Amino acid sequence: MEWKETARWIKFEEKVEQGGERWSKPHVATLSLHSLFELRTCIEKGSIMLDMEASSLPQVVEMIVDNQIETGLLKSELKDKVTYTLLRKHRHQTKKSNLRSLADIGKTVSSASRMFSNPDNARSPLESSVPCLATRTLDDELGVQRSPSMGWLSSPAMAHRNLTSTSLNDISDKPEKDQLKNKFMKKLPRDAEASNVLVGEVDFLESPFIAFVRLQQAVMLGALTEVPVPTRFLFILLGPKGKAKSYHEIGRAIATLMSDEVFHDIAYKAKDRQDLIAGIDEFLDEVIVLPPGEWDPAIRIEPPKSLPSSDKRKNMYSGGENLQMNGDTPHDGGHGGGGHGDCEELQRTGRFCGGLIKDIKRKAPFFASDFYDALNIQALSAILFIYLATVTNAITFGGLLGDATENMQGVLESFLGTAVTGAVFCLLAGQPLTILSSTGPVLVFERLLFNFSKDNDFDYLEFRLWIGLWSAFQCLILVATDASFLVKYFTRFTEEGFSSLISFIFIYDAFKKMIKLADHYPINSEFKVDYITHYSCACKPLDPVNSSLLNRTMVLSDYELVSPSSELANTTIDWAALTAKDCLKYGGQLVGNNCDYVPDITLMSFILFFGTYTCSMALKKFKTSRYFPTTARKLISDFAIILSILIFCGIDALVGVDTPKLIVPSEFKPTSPERGWFIPPFGGNPWWVYLAAAIPALLVTILIFMDQQITAVIVNRKEHKLKKGAGYHLDLFWVAILMIVCSFMGLPWYVAATVISIAHIDSLKMETETSAPGEQPKFLGVREQRVTGVIVFILTGVSVFMAPILKFIPMPVLYGVFLYMGVASLNGVQFMDRLKLLLMPLKHQPDFIYLRHVPLRRVHLFTFLQVLCLALLWILKSTVAAIIFPVMILALVAVRKAMDYLFSQHDLSFLDDVIPEKDKKKKEDEKKKKKKKGSMDSDNDDSDCPYSEKVPSIKIPMDIMEQEPFLSDSKPADREKSPTFLERHTSC
Amino acid sequence: MEWKETARWIKFEEKVEQGGERWSKPHVATLSLHSLFELRTCIEKGSIMLDMEASSLPQVVEMIVDNQIETGLLKSELKDKVTYTLLRKHRHQTKKSNLRSLADIGKTVSSASRMFSNPDNARSPLESSVPCLATRTLDDELGVQRSPSMGWLSSPAMAHRNLTSTSLNDISDKPEKDQLKNKFMKKLPRDAEASNVLVGEVDFLESPFIAFVRLQQAVMLGALTEVPVPTRFLFILLGPKGKAKSYHEIGRAIATLMSDEVFHDIAYKAKDRQDLIAGIDEFLDEVIVLPPGEWDPAIRIEPPKSLPSSDKRKNMYSGGENLQMNGDTPHDGGHGGGGHGDCEELQRTGRFCGGLIKDIKRKAPFFASDFYDALNIQALSAILFIYLATVTNAITFGGLLGDATENMQGVLESFLGTAVTGAVFCLLAGQPLTILSSTGPVLVFERLLFNFSKDNDFDYLEFRLWIGLWSAFQCLILVATDASFLVKYFTRFTEEGFSSLISFIFIYDAFKKMIKLADHYPINSEFKVDYITHYSCACKPLDPVNSSLLNRTMVLSDYELVSPSSELANTTIDWAALTAKDCLKYGGQLVGNNCDYVPDITLMSFILFFGTYTCSMALKKFKTSRYFPTTARKLISDFAIILSILIFCGIDALVGVDTPKLIVPSEFKPTSPERGWFIPPFGGNPWWVYLAAAIPALLVTILIFMDQQITAVIVNRKEHKLKKGAGYHLDLFWVAILMIVCSFMGLPWYVAATVISIAHIDSLKMETETSAPGEQPKFLGVREQRVTGVIVFILTGVSVFMAPILKFIPMPVLYGVFLYMGVASLNGVQFMDRLKLLLMPLKHQPDFIYLRHVPLRRVHLFTFLQVLCLALLWILKSTVAAIIFPVMILALVAVRKAMDYLFSQHDLSFLDDVIPEKDKKKKEDEKKKKKKKGSMDSDNDDSDCPYSEKVPSIKIPMDIMEQEPFLSDSKPADREKSPTFLERHTSC
Repeated sequence: MEWKETARWIKFEEKVEQGGERWSKPHVATLSLHSLFELRTCIEKGSIMLDMEASSLPQVVEMIVDNQIETGLLKSELKDKVTYTLLRKHRHQTKKSNLRSLADIGKTVSSASRMFSNPDNARSPLESSVPCLATRTLDDELGVQRSPSMGWLSSPAMAHRNLTSTSLNDISDKPEKDQLKNKFMKKLPRDAEASNVLVGEVDFLESPFIAFVRLQQAVMLGALTEVPVPTRFLFILLGPKGKAKSYHEIGRAIATLMSDEVFHDIAYKAKDRQDLIAGIDEFLDEVIVLPPGEWDPAIRIEPPKSLPSSDKRKNMYSGGENLQMNGDTPHDGGHGGGGHGDCEELQRTGRFCGGLIKDIKRKAPFFASDFYDALNIQALSAILFIYLATVTNAITFGGLLGDATENMQGVLESFLGTAVTGAVFCLLAGQPLTILSSTGPVLVFERLLFNFSKDNDFDYLEFRLWIGLWSAFQCLILVATDASFLVKYFTRFTEEGFSSLISFIFIYDAFKKMIKLADHYPINSEFKVDYITHYSCACKPLDPVNSSLLNRTMVLSDYELVSPSSELANTTIDWAALTAKDCLKYGGQLVGNNCDYVPDITLMSFILFFGTYTCSMALKKFKTSRYFPTTARKLISDFAIILSILIFCGIDALVGVDTPKLIVPSEFKPTSPERGWFIPPFGGNPWWVYLAAAIPALLVTILIFMDQQITAVIVNRKEHKLKKGAGYHLDLFWVAILMIVCSFMGLPWYVAATVISIAHIDSLKMETETSAPGEQPKFLGVREQRVTGVIVFILTGVSVFMAPILKFIPMPVLYGVFLYMGVASLNGVQFMDRLKLLLMPLKHQPDFIYLRHVPLRRVHLFTFLQVLCLALLWILKSTVAAIIFPVMILALVAVRKAMDYLFSQHDLSFLDDVIPEKDKKKKEDEKKKKKKKGSMDSDNDDSDCPYSEKVPSIKIPMDIMEQEPFLSDSKPADREKSPTFLERHTSC
Repeated sequence: MEWKETARWIKFEEKVEQGGERWSKPHVATLSLHSLFELRTCIEKGSIMLDMEASSLPQVVEMIVDNQIETGLLKSELKDKVTYTLLRKHRHQTKKSNLRSLADIGKTVSSASRMFSNPDNARSPLESSVPCLATRTLDDELGVQRSPSMGWLSSPAMAHRNLTSTSLNDISDKPEKDQLKNKFMKKLPRDAEASNVLVGEVDFLESPFIAFVRLQQAVMLGALTEVPVPTRFLFILLGPKGKAKSYHEIGRAIATLMSDEVFHDIAYKAKDRQDLIAGIDEFLDEVIVLPPGEWDPAIRIEPPKSLPSSDKRKNMYSGGENLQMNGDTPHDGGHGGGGHGDCEELQRTGRFCGGLIKDIKRKAPFFASDFYDALNIQALSAILFIYLATVTNAITFGGLLGDATENMQGVLESFLGTAVTGAVFCLLAGQPLTILSSTGPVLVFERLLFNFSKDNDFDYLEFRLWIGLWSAFQCLILVATDASFLVKYFTRFTEEGFSSLISFIFIYDAFKKMIKLADHYPINSEFKVDYITHYSCACKPLDPVNSSLLNRTMVLSDYELVSPSSELANTTIDWAALTAKDCLKYGGQLVGNNCDYVPDITLMSFILFFGTYTCSMALKKFKTSRYFPTTARKLISDFAIILSILIFCGIDALVGVDTPKLIVPSEFKPTSPERGWFIPPFGGNPWWVYLAAAIPALLVTILIFMDQQITAVIVNRKEHKLKKGAGYHLDLFWVAILMIVCSFMGLPWYVAATVISIAHIDSLKMETETSAPGEQPKFLGVREQRVTGVIVFILTGVSVFMAPILKFIPMPVLYGVFLYMGVASLNGVQFMDRLKLLLMPLKHQPDFIYLRHVPLRRVHLFTFLQVLCLALLWILKSTVAAIIFPVMILALVAVRKAMDYLFSQHDLSFLDDVIPEKDKKKKEDEKKKKKKKGSMDSDNDDSDCPYSEKVPSIKIPMDIMEQEPFLSDSKPADREKSPTFLERHTSC
C-alpha cells in the first residue's frame, strides 16, 4: 500500500500518464462544476486547522485525527487505521526509463537503479528520499492493483509566495543526486512552498475524513514532496469506497485552487473556515464556463500565450473602486506623438545643449554595463552576422562611389570610413545598437557634387570638405537647440512607411544585383551537347583582311585598348596563349561563338542566392520547431545566418565553379593616386566657394538629420523594450563630429542604416530562459551594449588583412543575406499585416485589435494611402530627385496630418500607434476586466454604463451580500436566512 | 429606437463587432457562472408559455403581456409601453461596406444603397425586410446613441432539429435579393428553426419583464430574423436601467443553451417550467470550468477540431445504464488482425471462388456510379498528375528493362504494357484506385531470367511466356481458394514498414537519378572566365603520329566505333564540321580540354529538381493558408503538382538550357527487330522447359501476390473511408489474367504500385465543403471511381502521339515530382511520427494516444526494431537477393509475431493498429465520457471502479435526487425542504 503521485500544478496542471510513465504536457486544468461544489461542501464540513504548529507528518496526522475525534467526525476506534493509512509510503512519478529520446542524451545521466520496466512491478519499495528535480507540486495515487480493499488518491498544489518566479524548465530529467539539488536550488524561487493533497478511498470509513491544514511554519514533510520544498498546506480526503473518481476530482479542484494566485493569497490570510469558503466563492465568481456541446473536455487546453494579471483580480477584491472607473477612456496612446511622444528623451529642455547634457547624464551610468552585458554567445553570432553585412555594404557602396567620383573616393575609403565612424559611434553615441552606414541619398549627392565640381572646375574634395564642415556645424546647432524633439511627430505611419520602403529597396537591390550578375555572365542557351566541337573562342590578331570570316568580335568595354605599337611587336606575341584580358590589351580580337558566354556561374549564383536565403529563413524558424533541446535550437536559430553562409560557401567550394567572390582591398592606400589621407582646406577653390558651400550643406543637413533620426526612432521603439534609454541628441552630436573627421580625410559621410540596425537588434533579442511548465517565454529586451558594434567595425577595419579568408565567400551568398535582412525587417510591421489583409477573405483575417474596432474599409483606405505615399517615394527615389528623398519624409508627416480630416481620431488611434499589437490587446482586456467585472467576454464598448456595484474584498468577503439583487422583489423568504454564494447567484 | 443584432449562434458564437462592422470569427462561447445562475432564476420567475398558438409577433407580444398582467408580474398601465418597445424595428448586422478585401471581389455584388460610412449614421431607417444570407441566429441591440433614456439588448439562438445540418459557409457576403434566397435555401437545413432572444433595459420598468415562449408551430415573425427561418422560441428580458451588461450576459447564456443540442431537445419536449430548469441543471452538470488564473476570458477560443457527439450525452440522459458499462474494455482493435481483420472482404468463404464471387457481387452495384462519381474538377488534376507519374515511370522502367534484356523488352513494350494492363485493371478490378506499375523485384527477376536464358541457350521470351502462364495459373488457384484472406495478418507494422521502404526507395531513386545526370553532364569546375580562349574541343582525324600533342582523347562509350574504312574515305570528311557523335562515328577524336564538360545543364537540372519539389510542397500546403477564398485555395492545392510542373517547364524554356527532356517513343513497333507482338508458345525450347517453368513461376507468384496485396491493403485502409468496398480476390484475378496477356505479347508484368496508388488516392480526397461557421471541414472519403485510372492509362497509350508536346518536359522536373510523391506518401505514417519522436525532447512531443499509454522506451524499442527490419530489407534490396524481397515481407509478419513475446498486448494494441490516430482518440474520449460521467478529464483508466449511480433522464430529471449524497449524514436539515440542482451539488 502506497501513495501514488497523479498530477502536479506549478502554474498549469501536469498529469502522470500511467501508461506512458511520463508527465503530460502542462495544460489548463478543466474542472467540473460538480467537483467545485463538492469541494466547497468539503471545506464547510471538514476540519479546518489553520496555523497548526507541527514539524513532521506523523505529528500533523496525529493532530488532525485527534481533532476529528474531538469534534465527533471520526470514531476513536478508527484512529489507528487512519493514521496508518496516511503515513504510508509515497511513490513519485520520476523518469524511470534510461532509454530516452536521442535529443535528451548527453544532457543528464539517469540512474539505472530506478528503472521500472512494467507498471506491474511498480509496487516494489523503490521509493527513496532523494527528491526528484521534476516535482514541485505533487499529486499521488496509491497503487490499486494488489490491494483490492484499498485505493487512494492524493493531489496537491504548490503555492508560490513569490509571484515573479521563473522556475525549472525541463521537468522530465532526473539527474544524479548531487546534480539534482544544485540544479534545483538554482531554478526554484527561493520561498516557494508546497501544498500537498492526499485523496483516497478506504474500506473502513463510513463517512469521509476531510481535513484542510495550514501549518504555522512551512516544514519539510519528508518524502511527501519529491523536491526539498517545505509544505505549508495539506488537504486530506479519505472516504468510503466507490467514489474514487469523485474524490480524485475534488483533489484536482483544491489543487487547482491552491495554484490560483488569488485563492492561495486568501488561503495564507484566512482566519477561519468562512474566509476559505469566501475564497472558493470568489473563484467560482471568476470562473470561465464552456458549454459542453461546444468543447470536448478530453482536449487538453494549451496554456494561453498571455495570462490576465492576477494583480487586477486581487485589486478588485481588495476594494479599489476607483480602479474600475479608469476603464472609461477607450485606450491609451492617442494619435500624433504616438508612443514615443511622451518619453523623457524627446522632451524639449529649452536650454542650450540641454538635451545633449541630459543624454550624457542618462547614458553615463550604463557605460560600464555596456561592456559586461555583452558576455553572451549571442553577441558572437551578432558580430559575425553584422560584420558580414557591413563589409558587403561597404564594398558595394565603395564600388558605386568610386564609379560616381572617378575613384576620388573608392572601396578603401569606404572601408576606412565605415570602420572609423562606426567604431567611434558605437563606443560613444547615445544608442550603440544603431549601425552607421552609407545610404543611397548620400551617394546621389556625391555623384551630383562631383559632376558639378568637374563642370565648374572646382576641387571636388575641398568643396566637399567645406560642405561637410558647414553641415556638421548646422547639425551641431540642431543638437544645441534640442531640435531632435521634432522626432515625436514621426508616427507609426511615417516610421513604418520609411522602414518598409528601405526594406523593399534592400530586397529590390538584392535581386537587381543578381540580375546584373546574370547579365555579366550570360548563359549560352543555344548550347547543344552534341555540337560541342563547334564552340570555341580564340584570340587572334587584328587582321582587317580576314574580318569578313570572323563569326563574332567581342571587345570588352572594361578594358582600354592599348595600341599595339606601344607594346611588344605583334610578331612576338603568342596569340593563342593569351587570356581574354591580355588579348584585348594587346589589341587582339576574341573570335568564336563561345566568347560571349560564361557557363555555370549564373546558375550556381542563383542556387547560392536562393539557397542562402531559404536556409537562413528555415534555420531562424528552427527555434519554434519540436526537435532537439531548447538550448540547441536557440543556438542554431541565433547562428542561422552564419550557418547558412558557411553551408553555402561550402557548397560553392565543393562545386568549384568560379562564382564572383568577395574581394576586399588588400593594400592600405587611397584608391586614387591623386589624393592623400588629409584634404587641405584651402587653396583649391576661390574664397567665396567656402561660404557658398553652406547652401548645399543645408540639404545635406536635412538629409543627415532625417535619415539619422528616423532610424533612431525605429531602433528606440517601445516594443524593443530598451532599458538604457535613447540618446537622440548625443547620436546626432557624434554624427556631426564624425562628419568633420570624414570630410577632412576625404571619406564618405555616414548615418544610421535602418535595415542593418534592425538586423542588429533582432540578433540580440533576449527571452526568458526558464519558466513554469506551460508558461510562454517572454521577450525581455535587447542586449544593449557597445561591444558588438565596436568589434564589428574594428573587424571591418582589419578586413584588409583578412582578404585571403574573405575571398572564399561568394557574392551571391551575401546577396542572399541581404534578401533575408530585407524580408526579416518587414516582420511584425503593422503596415505589412494590413497589406496581407487585402488578400485575405474576411473570415480568415486574424483577430487584430484594430479590426475589432475599425471598419475594414477604413483600414483598407488607410493602407491604400500609405501604399500610394510609398509608391510616390519609390518613383522619386528612382530619379535624380532622390537627393530630396529624406525631405520627403517630412511630406509623409504632412500626409499623416492631413489624414486627421479623413479619418476619425478613434480610427487613427487604432491604426496609427506605436504601441505594439499585443500590448494593446492586453491593455484593452485589462480594461475590460476592470470595467465589466462579472460579465466577461463582451465587446460592446459602446454601452458604457458603469458597472461597479459589486466590489467584494478579501478581508470582508461577505459584504458582497449588501448589494441589492436585481430581482429582489420576487425573492423567496426562506432563502434570506442563510445567504451564501449560491444564494447570491440565484437571487436573480 | 430599434433593436440591434449583437451576436448569433449556429453552432458557435459569432459577435457583431461594433467598431469593425463585421461578424467576429466563430468561437466557443465562454460564459460566466453568474449569468447561468441568473438565467436559471429568470426561468424560475418569468412567464413560461409553452406551445403558444400565434402567427405574428404582435400577437405573441400581446399574449405574453396579457399573461404577465394576469399573473401580476406586470402592472397593466405599462402594457402599452412594453408592447411598443417589443415591436420596434430590428436592425441586423449586414455587410454594410462595398469596399472589401481584394480576395472577395468578383464573388458577389453588394448593393450600394445599404452602405453606412459611420456608425453614427446607423440610426437612419434603412432596415429592410430582405433577409440577409448571413443571419440564421440573431442577437440584436438597440441603438443607444440618441436615446439616452433607453438602451436594449437582445440575443437569440438557432435551434436545428436536423442534427446533420451542413450549412452556410461564407457568412459575410450579402448578395442581391433573388440570389440570396436561392443561396440560402440551398444551404440551410430544411427544418431549421430559430430562437430569438430579445434583451434590453428600459426606464419605465421597476422589475424585470421575463418571458420564455415556445410556439405551437414555428412561424415567420417578419424581420425578427434576417433570414427567412421560422421562429420557434422566443426569450424576452426587459429590465430596469443600469443592468444592461448583466442582461446581455443572460441573453448570451440562453442563446448558448438554445444552441446546445441536448438543451434544445429538452426545450422542444418540455412540458413545464420544471423541465426547462432541469435542462439547465443538466447543462450545468456537464459544463467545463476553467480556472480564472489559468485562462484569459478575453481570448476567443477557437472551435475544436472534433466535438464530442451529443448523442452520447443524450443517451446518457435518456436512461441507458447499460451503455456506461461498455466502457470497461480498454479499447477496440486489438493486435494481429488490426483494423481490417474483421472486414467482410477478407472473410474466408471456404467455397470455390467464394471470395471472387462475393467481390463481384459487392462491386457490381457500384459499377455505374464508378463513372458518374468522377464528374469533378479534382479528377482532372488527378488524371494529369498520375498520368505524368505513370509515363515517367514507364519510361525509366522501360529503359532499365531494355538494358537488362538487351532490348527484348524496351520502352515501347513498357508503354504498351502499362497502358493495356492499367486500363483493363482500372475498368474491371475490385479496387480501381490502385494503379498498376512495374516494380523493382520484377525488373530483377527479368534480368536474372534473361541471363539464365542466354547462358543456357533458351528462347528468353518463350521461357518467360511459360513462367507467366504457370504463375498466372497459380494466382488463379490462390483466387479460387480465397487465399487473399491471409492479408489480414498484415498489421500496421508490416504495412507501414513496406510503404515507408517503398517511399524511401522513391526518394533515394530521385536523388540517384539526379546524381547520375550530374555525372553525365560534368561541370568544369576549373573554368576561369578570363581563360576562355584556352577552352576548346575540336574533332580531329585519328592521327597516331600527332597523338603525343593531343591534350585529351574522349571516346564516348555509348556509340560504337565504326571503322573508317567501312564509311567514306577519310579525305572526304570535313572534320571540323562534324558533331561529337558523328566525329566518333567516323573514327575521329575529340581533342581539347573542354570536351569532357557540359556547361549549365547540371546546375539547371538541380534548380528544376528542387524547385519543382519545393513548389509542389508549398502549393499543396496553400490550402491551409489565410489568403484567397476557399475555392481558389482548394483549386490551387488540387492542381499543385501540375502547376509546379508547368511553372518549371516554363522556367526551363525561358532559360533555354538544353536540359534532358522526356522523350517518348514516337513509332509503334517492338523495340527489338528480332521479335513481334505475339510470342509463339512452342518451338523455341525443349518440351521439359514448359514444365520446369513452374518452379521459377512459384517465385513470381509469391512476388506478385505479396506486392499486389500489401498495396491493396494500404489502399483499402480504413482511414481512407472507402465506401464501395475492397475486392482483393477480384484484383488478384485480373492481375493473373493480365499476366497471361502480357506474357503472350512479350510485355512486362504489372502489379499494384504503392506510392503512385497513394498519390492517386491523395489527389482524390474529399472534404465537406460547407459547414456551420467554426466547424472544421471533415474528411469525407475518396472519389472512388474508375474514370481517372482508365483515362490515365489511355493517355499513356496515346503518349506515342503526344511526343511533340511531352518533349518540353525536362526530366529533372519529373524527378522532382517523384521526390514529392515519396515524401508525401510518408505523411501521416505512424512509423514516421515515431521516428521523429527520437529527435524530440520529451516536453515537445506531440500528444499521441500511444504516448499516453505506452512508456516512451517501449515506443522507441518498437521503432528501433522496425528500423532494423527496414534496414535489413534495404540491404537485401540493394543486392541480387532483391528477387526474394517480396518474400521478406512474410519475414516482417513473422517478426511482428515474435514481438508478441517482447511487448505486452496492451502496448502492441496501441502501437500496431490500423485504426488511425484521431479515430482512436475520439473513441477513447467517448468511452471516458461514458465511464466517468460527472468527473471529466481524468486519464486514470487503471482505477476502473464503476461509476454509474447518477443516471438522470430527460423525462424525469428529478430522479437525480434519489441518489444518496456522499456526505448525507452531515447534511443540514433545512436544506432538505427544497431539493434542487444546487442542493444536489452541495450535498457533498
